[in-house]
Amino acid sequence: MKSIQPTRVTMVGGGSWATALIKILSENNVSIKWWMRSQADADHIKKYHHNKSYLSDVQINTRKVKVCTKIREAFKESEYIILAVPAAFVADALKGLTPAHFAGKRVVSAIKGMVPSTNQLVTDWVGDQYSVPAAQVAVIAGPCHAEEVALEKHSYLTIASPDAACAGDVASLVSCRYVQTTPVDDIYGIEYSAVMKNIIALASGITRGLGYGDNFQAVLVSNAMQEIKLFVDAIYPKHRDLSGSAYLGDLLVTAYSPFSRNRTFGTLIGRGYTIQSAQAEMNMIAEGYYAVKSIHEINQRFGVDMPIVQAVYNILYERAAPTSEMNLLKEKLK
Amino acid sequence: MKSIQPTRVTMVGGGSWATALIKILSENNVSIKWWMRSQADADHIKKYHHNKSYLSDVQINTRKVKVCTKIREAFKESEYIILAVPAAFVADALKGLTPAHFAGKRVVSAIKGMVPSTNQLVTDWVGDQYSVPAAQVAVIAGPCHAEEVALEKHSYLTIASPDAACAGDVASLVSCRYVQTTPVDDIYGIEYSAVMKNIIALASGITRGLGYGDNFQAVLVSNAMQEIKLFVDAIYPKHRDLSGSAYLGDLLVTAYSPFSRNRTFGTLIGRGYTIQSAQAEMNMIAEGYYAVKSIHEINQRFGVDMPIVQAVYNILYERAAPTSEMNLLKEKLK
Repeated sequence: MKSIQPTRVTMVGGGSWATALIKILSENNVSIKWWMRSQADADHIKKYHHNKSYLSDVQINTRKVKVCTKIREAFKESEYIILAVPAAFVADALKGLTPAHFAGKRVVSAIKGMVPSTNQLVTDWVGDQYSVPAAQVAVIAGPCHAEEVALEKHSYLTIASPDAACAGDVASLVSCRYVQTTPVDDIYGIEYSAVMKNIIALASGITRGLGYGDNFQAVLVSNAMQEIKLFVDAIYPKHRDLSGSAYLGDLLVTAYSPFSRNRTFGTLIGRGYTIQSAQAEMNMIAEGYYAVKSIHEINQRFGVDMPIVQAVYNILYERAAPTSEMNLLKEKLK
Repeated sequence: MKSIQPTRVTMVGGGSWATALIKILSENNVSIKWWMRSQADADHIKKYHHNKSYLSDVQINTRKVKVCTKIREAFKESEYIILAVPAAFVADALKGLTPAHFAGKRVVSAIKGMVPSTNQLVTDWVGDQYSVPAAQVAVIAGPCHAEEVALEKHSYLTIASPDAACAGDVASLVSCRYVQTTPVDDIYGIEYSAVMKNIIALASGITRGLGYGDNFQAVLVSNAMQEIKLFVDAIYPKHRDLSGSAYLGDLLVTAYSPFSRNRTFGTLIGRGYTIQSAQAEMNMIAEGYYAVKSIHEINQRFGVDMPIVQAVYNILYERAAPTSEMNLLKEKLK
């Protein structure tokens, strides 16, 4: 009896979410090429079978996972490309690749951010830059902290693609004993919602840092859901229930969890750190910092009333004082 | 120049939410009769100007607030009756009163629970028992922990009444420097939603107690919003956006906050306490314990599919083991 060929996957990115996805994928019949920038990290994984910089408790099965630092090599023969670098670095990570390198492959974004140079969703950007057809593009979303995947806490992912077969295949690929997956079609709604939730988590952190409590945060998050719905419906009108896990759930895990980088970044800002010192304090990038600029610029065309997004933008890009900006915001919430 | 007459209010209940409401009301031009069962607590407040049992840091302005333990005396001449006892005790608190005692008064429920003996919302029960017209009934809802009111953390309340003037007047009455209020008309939707959120908080606690993490909780709460919407829309069909503060916000503050009694009760159950020992461990009643029975019984007529509510009911009333019940539930979520 012949064994079934493993699915060939390329993972782009060496951070915590990439590491968590490697762990999930490794539970299935896969052969992974794991690209990361750092040669030292790659060497460490080859030698010691764990990523020393992120989720270092996760054992890497090097029988299934081959680490490399050359992006063209990483792409060879893969059926799936999973992107898991911060959106601000995706262009750099893929430098040197051409549309030919993407031909016939499905591209899955696990990135919850906008490409800053073009204000595009990652899937749109990949489609434009590398001529990847929409039907070959998917997004991995849902409330899922990498840290809890490492601990094998029961989690859920939503896989969105305009192509049902693509969504279904990716959903199978990343489901395992402790991760349930659901395929859906609202790729834009889910991607924008994922981007915006980082801005809200930042706002949530800022108000925490300023001393606002749980009562306020609950109202902030409720109002945020309404902002997200208005914005997403304006950009891509479609019937969608935003109480789904990929929308509300993703916002909750980010706005309420101490694992959230965006919330932590916001908390530092609320406590009076400058942007530079807050960034220096943190080891990781806060996607919401870039996202709020992109969303603000995109919204110049749509004019959706988004007081929370506006407040975060004013604080991070217009040097508004967090205290006075939140004093203005609190009057607008209800 | 004659001063404006203070609004005459009766507060029924001596617990933490009643104490917080007394604090809020006292910021305005009011004259309050504060009824509580315990003569010792009443005497303590008269003498030391704080409630020794709940929110003991809150100073009671005894110029505006007169404490008493006789319910008929407390009702005399009041324009507003605010009910703030656990739903299971409301009938007992009002014993000896007749419809005549309620005549011409507005009755405001600050209770988030069902009257267990009749499975009625508190406002419905009051209407039936004491012939209070619907236009004179209101509900105080919204994400608002009493503990944070005591700390004057900025908070929001939603006031619901079928009568716009009544909602508006109550909203004015309970708004102050640190509490913003919004009057709305969906009294049933808000009241049922407030009842159900206690069940969800209980579920959230149970899963916490069993070791589930933030990822799971975010999915639980998202799925819960869908259950709440299905149920409330089945009982009182009406266009409503459940992402409002009085629905989603109220659920969030209860499901996520360490102040939540229902969540704490659930956590104990999840950790293996019996219902009796969990109740003994806590000083306060968990409304969700009674609410899940009422909602379960009401739903016999409607047959709404509510796996989370069902799981909590099975654990609390059918002796189902939390571990196996949550194993079944987790397969149903997405």
